[in-house]
Order: sequence, then structure tokens, then C-alpha cells
Amino acid sequence: MKVRDVGEFGLIGRLMDGVQFGPGVIIPPGDDAAVVEITPGMRLVYTCDCMVQDVHFLCTASGRGVGYKLLASNVSDIAAMGGRPRYALITVVTPPDVEVEWLEAVYQGLKECAKEYSISIVGGDTSNGPKIMLNVALLGEVEPDKELLRSKARVGDLVCVTGPLGASHAGLQVVLGRVARSCLLTRSAEERHYRSSPRVAEALRLSAIGCRCANDISDGLASEAREIADASGVGIELDAMEIPISEEAKYICGLLNENPLDYALHGGEDYELVFTIASELREILLQMLPESRVIGRVVAGSGVMLRGADQKELRSGFGHFR
Amino acid sequence: MKVRDVGEFGLIGRLMDGVQFGPGVIIPPGDDAAVVEITPGMRLVYTCDCMVQDVHFLCTASGRGVGYKLLASNVSDIAAMGGRPRYALITVVTPPDVEVEWLEAVYQGLKECAKEYSISIVGGDTSNGPKIMLNVALLGEVEPDKELLRSKARVGDLVCVTGPLGASHAGLQVVLGRVARSCLLTRSAEERHYRSSPRVAEALRLSAIGCRCANDISDGLASEAREIADASGVGIELDAMEIPISEEAKYICGLLNENPLDYALHGGEDYELVFTIASELREILLQMLPESRVIGRVVAGSGVMLRGADQKELRSGFGHFR
Repeated sequence: MKVRDVGEFGLIGRLMDGVQFGPGVIIPPGDDAAVVEITPGMRLVYTCDCMVQDVHFLCTASGRGVGYKLLASNVSDIAAMGGRPRYALITVVTPPDVEVEWLEAVYQGLKECAKEYSISIVGGDTSNGPKIMLNVALLGEVEPDKELLRSKARVGDLVCVTGPLGASHAGLQVVLGRVARSCLLTRSAEERHYRSSPRVAEALRLSAIGCRCANDISDGLASEAREIADASGVGIELDAMEIPISEEAKYICGLLNENPLDYALHGGEDYELVFTIASELREILLQMLPESRVIGRVVAGSGVMLRGADQKELRSGFGHFR
Repeated sequence: MKVRDVGEFGLIGRLMDGVQFGPGVIIPPGDDAAVVEITPGMRLVYTCDCMVQDVHFLCTASGRGVGYKLLASNVSDIAAMGGRPRYALITVVTPPDVEVEWLEAVYQGLKECAKEYSISIVGGDTSNGPKIMLNVALLGEVEPDKELLRSKARVGDLVCVTGPLGASHAGLQVVLGRVARSCLLTRSAEERHYRSSPRVAEALRLSAIGCRCANDISDGLASEAREIADASGVGIELDAMEIPISEEAKYICGLLNENPLDYALHGGEDYELVFTIASELREILLQMLPESRVIGRVVAGSGVMLRGADQKELRSGFGHFR
């Protein structure tokens, strides 16, 4: 069934079918705007992220995977601020000849992610357009002055990550057909490409022990660490041997004769957090979040240095238009 | 200069240049998400609206006009809920060969509208894509239980509008080249097509005197009234002779030999409000908002009837995909 066969309101009805509203939704979708409540005394965390056909995904991709990933990337931005996600708006631009079932699968993925993170999808907009374009605006809440900011790294802090890196980029190689879905690890990599786990709970616990500086790893560890260094006016030294690499990245790099460290540094979309904490918090951290690793330190200076066999400076992130 | 020449961060820098932040912006754009505050005790009003090249505008259109109109359409949705707009996120999808100056003009229009309605643009997302697609997510605040809902029309209420209708659709005829920019009224119509004035202040005053039911006229009076009738489980009778028609619509319909009442009923994008109030509030209303007009009444039954020479039922709104 094509989008043009069901019309705008038919499409919205099908996509929103089964959406559940958590507490705080005063006026659900159906009026000019949604009305929602936030916990008294909290500040709002507010972000948006879009995905465009042939840029971020192919129309042969799993709609469910695309939907999950789209909302998860927004959840990760809220997590990286130390916030708790609450309310989402979804914009769907689609050509009229797209299969309704594919868009329903996108919403299935959105709803699964929403359920996992207790988010209410409270509205959106739909329009005709030349390609599929999906946008999520996500609103969350954060305790005042408990925000995790890129600008709060201090010389002497430890640089840490919440878990192993590279699995999403490894999964992309499966999606792109460079590696066959031959075994558990290749299928797991593909799953991790679409279904990362934004670190909301971890960020709240980090905030509670006094962490004030974090970034989510959407573009690769190198550029995220660089953003922290630039925003804080400090340098960051990373120990190559301490950067945790996912089993999926190791396996797929073995097949492709590539370097898994490159996947961790430049692959992106793992949605782990890179953060800094005072060095005296090391033991508490490793006890509280056993998956986390200390991978370096904040130093006077600027830029990100990789400490290993050679002390070369890493390249920073890439732009979408180049 | 093309988008590809400045790159993603260069583009964001140029677009956000000169953006001003009002009170309540705790963490401005530049981190993973914005952090903002809302007035204590208020609820949030939350909406989004997109515009797509060749669907909602042509790339030959005034970028400034497109930007203003995009934000204004969102402001109007907040107004129609009785809310006050506060914080906007902008998503820009663009091909790399688009002129940066055109997108800067879009942002000029966005900033003008933001300034007029005291909105802070606190972030967004940019991506490569096949056509220009623009999305605004807008967050506002509303006093609890003062919301203006489609479902609150009661039998016996008066049906009213905040001002004359049809100017935006008249202006569209100028934009489409059906009418030359020959005189003040044609130029004024074109201006009104891009620069309607969402009725935020009027809605707050309506809410203050006890109005609880409104819809903004984005799709034409007929379908907006129909939405109120359907949501409230009532019928609405409109008096054709009482519907205020803008001078621009009368003039341009004269040139084109078309019926200005059709522009008012089906033209849309005037962003006036259609609302219902208890009949005893008539005098207060006309004193408080002299531009407003009583155009009909809420009756038992269903649907929208136009009372005039013939009592035919109006057709309802259209879908984007048909």
C-alpha cells in the first residue's frame, strides 16, 4: 500500500496507532499542539536530529532499525547533557509512492525506543517531498546545575568512556555488504548499528557523583574528545591501549584487514559517552559503572593527542557537506 | 557562494550569526542540546511544522518570506492553544549547490519572526539532502487549564474570528504570477502571504475572559470550523454575510473573477483564530478585540453549515498527499 492511497490523515492514523502516553501528557496529539508537564523545578533539555534517505539510510534498510536509531540519536544527546528524555515530536516527509508498511516499521522502531526510555511521542508533522526525511525534536528534563557540559573538563581530570567502541561502524560494514551476515558477531554488529543504547541511566549516575563534563560519541571518539578539549580550553591525551574496542569491531576488522582502533576513533554512532571526572573519583566510577574505562587525562594545552607507539595528533570530525 | 563551499559548521555559523537569546536560555547552542527554563507553574505547549521545496515554496521565492512564514505557522499553533512561544529548534536539509545567501535569508526571516514574538532559536540540525526541507519545533508555555481546545465548543456559544480572511490566498495568486504586482493592494497581498501575524496576544486575552475553544486558520475557515465541530461533537452554523473578507482578497478576486468568500473559507494561511465564546461575552469581546467578528453559532448536531442564500454544507479540509 502506498502513501498516496491512504492520504495524510490515514497515514498519521496508521503511524500513531498504538502510541502510548506516559504521565505528564495533558493534551495528546489531535489539537493544534500538544500540552505536556515537566517535573517542577527541573530545567528543559531540548534537541533535534534528522535522517535523510540516501544520506543517513537507504530505502532498502530496515525501517524499524532506522526509526529506533533516529530516536536513539536524540536520546543520546539528552543523555550527554545529564538529562532524562520525556516528549518527542516526529516530522515525516515522504514521496507519495513510498510503502506505508515501511513507514509503519519506522514508527515501530520509534515506539520501541520510546518505550525503552519512557518517552511519549506527542505529535509531529507530515508532508509530501522528493525523498524520505525524518526529524525528531526531543524534550527532556535536567536538574538545575547538574548539566553535563563540553566546557567543564579541568586539567588533571581523567578522561573515560562508558563502554566499548566500534560496534556500530562494524555493523555498517555488514549493512553496506562489505561483510556477509555469516555468524553471530556479524549479526550482532548489524544489530548494534541500528540499536545502540544511549546512556541515560549512566549519565544520571555520573552526574550524581559529581561528573560535569560529557559528550556522546556520535561522530567517533576523536572528534568528540576534540570538542571537549576545544570547549574547555584544555588538551586531552588518550592512551591507545586503554580504549575499549568492541568484539564486533575486532572480528570484522580481522575479516577486512582494517584497524579496529580507527573504528573506535572515527567510526561513530556507538552512543557511549566520553566524559571527564576528578581523578579521586576513579574507584567510585569503576565500581558504579563496571563497563566504563579510564582512557586518558586532561592536560594543559589544546587538541587531542593519542599516546601510543607514535604521538601523532588525531584528525578531528568531518562535515556533512564535504 | 554554495553550501558545499562553507561546509556544515561554516553554514551553521553563518545561519546562527546574530541570533539573540532571551531570558531562560541557560545553555545556548553549541553543546549536545540546549538547556532552557520555563516560567514556574506553567505547562508546555509543543508543536512542529515543516516546509518542503516545490511543495510549500519554490526556490525562486523570497527566502526571508519563507523563513518568516515557517516560524509564524508554528507560532500560530501555539497561539491557538492559548500559549506563549518561547524556544525554537530549526532543521535545515539542503543540497550542497544551494546558495548560502538564500538560506541566510531564510534565517533572516526566522530571526525577524523570533524577535517579534520573543522566541529564542536555541539550536537545530543540518543535513545534506536532495531538496530544501525546513522544520521548526517550537516550545511554548501555557497557564494550566487555560488551554484553548478544539473540543470545548458548547451549544449556544458564538463562533467568532479575530480578523479578516483571504489575504494570504490572494497573495498566493500574486506569488504564482496570476496577478501582476501592479498596485499597493497586490503588493500588500503578497506581503500578507509571507507575513501573517499569528494571534498570540489576542489568544491570551481571549483565554483571560474565559474563552476555551480556538483553532488557528491554517487550512481555511471551513475545515478549521469543521475540526472544532468534530472535536466538540457539535454543529456549527456560519453566516456567509458576516465572514470578514480582507480588502486584498476582494480586490484580487475582482481581477480574477473569483469569489472572495471561497478564499476565506478554503484559502488558508491567514493565521487568524476561529474561536467560540459564551454569548454573554459578545460585548466584552468586541470591545477588547475590535477587529474580531461574530460569524455564527454552535448548534446541536454535527458538521459545518453555511447560512446564506442556500444552506449547503461546506466541504472539509484537504490532505497533503492527494
